[in-house]
Amino acid sequence: MEALKRRIKTDGRNLGGGILKVDGFINHQVDPDLMQACGRELARRFAPARATKVLTAEISGIAPAFCAALALGVPVVYARKQRPITMPDQVYLTLAPSHTKGLSVELIVSPEYLRATERVLIIDDFLATGQTILGLARLAGAAGAAVVGIGVVIEKTFEGGREALRPLGVPIEALARVADMRDGRIVFAN
Amino acid sequence: MEALKRRIKTDGRNLGGGILKVDGFINHQVDPDLMQACGRELARRFAPARATKVLTAEISGIAPAFCAALALGVPVVYARKQRPITMPDQVYLTLAPSHTKGLSVELIVSPEYLRATERVLIIDDFLATGQTILGLARLAGAAGAAVVGIGVVIEKTFEGGREALRPLGVPIEALARVADMRDGRIVFAN
Repeated sequence: MEALKRRIKTDGRNLGGGILKVDGFINHQVDPDLMQACGRELARRFAPARATKVLTAEISGIAPAFCAALALGVPVVYARKQRPITMPDQVYLTLAPSHTKGLSVELIVSPEYLRATERVLIIDDFLATGQTILGLARLAGAAGAAVVGIGVVIEKTFEGGREALRPLGVPIEALARVADMRDGRIVFAN
Repeated sequence: MEALKRRIKTDGRNLGGGILKVDGFINHQVDPDLMQACGRELARRFAPARATKVLTAEISGIAPAFCAALALGVPVVYARKQRPITMPDQVYLTLAPSHTKGLSVELIVSPEYLRATERVLIIDDFLATGQTILGLARLAGAAGAAVVGIGVVIEKTFEGGREALRPLGVPIEALARVADMRDGRIVFAN
């Protein structure tokens, strides 16, 4: 998606160590028009998957997942990292190793909103090691639901996430694929 | 907003102790069409305030704030509760007592995205005691920015939030005002 890549080139920053700072338009401050365009493009690419629900993880997955769900006309569920008091005692819970935090986080979804009949499209802001998305896929699996696709705004191709997700056997789409961040550069894959 | 009130009547649940469960359409699973309608209505009500930025707190403020920002055509910033590694060392930080969690949470905004020239519209999902919104107003104040309005999806009028926010001297709008939750009921204010 060219508008996204241009924005990453203009406003993204390579902080070193594989860390891409895009918090001016994606995950602290959000540019709503750009994010809506991302959601529409993800919805277009996954239209054949006939998803009935979008699933993401709080926090920074919420905006892109919401926009994809809006464009697809289906509800979006964001997995919580802490169980709110409004959630039933029986939940789907899995642990996902957090790449940037160096520990595991819980991902929790209420069974009320993830059913065995569901066709789940997983959306997140980043695909890096793929651990969060694998956790979301486990939650869908625990519910007996089918994962029908995985879409992300930005993929870092050098962190192995796509390979980690391949066993799921579903289409994976990234709107911008960053292939190289060595020496301060931000190089997109072809 | 009648569509919202109907939905609360249909799908909301009074869990007792003043807890309103709306996680089927607002803050775990989100109905994108309803949320977009909420955002548009908040944008309509605050059009005269000429906001240049929407400010909210992660997590459940993100969806309504995003929708209001999309409708207003301005960026949205969500205050983080943990400082991500992409954030500079110098940040705006305040503590907000958490009503439902029984402890204080940090609210953190990068100075990169909150400037003294900004006209800030604060949006959240709930107005209860008002403590989170007061925290967001302190962050705006620390940046030297002007708060020009406060909008929420649901207000619980019996928890004193509107009174707590009155000293800010800005318009406060709620799309649904719940006035009484005693005896399992959900009664809207007139």
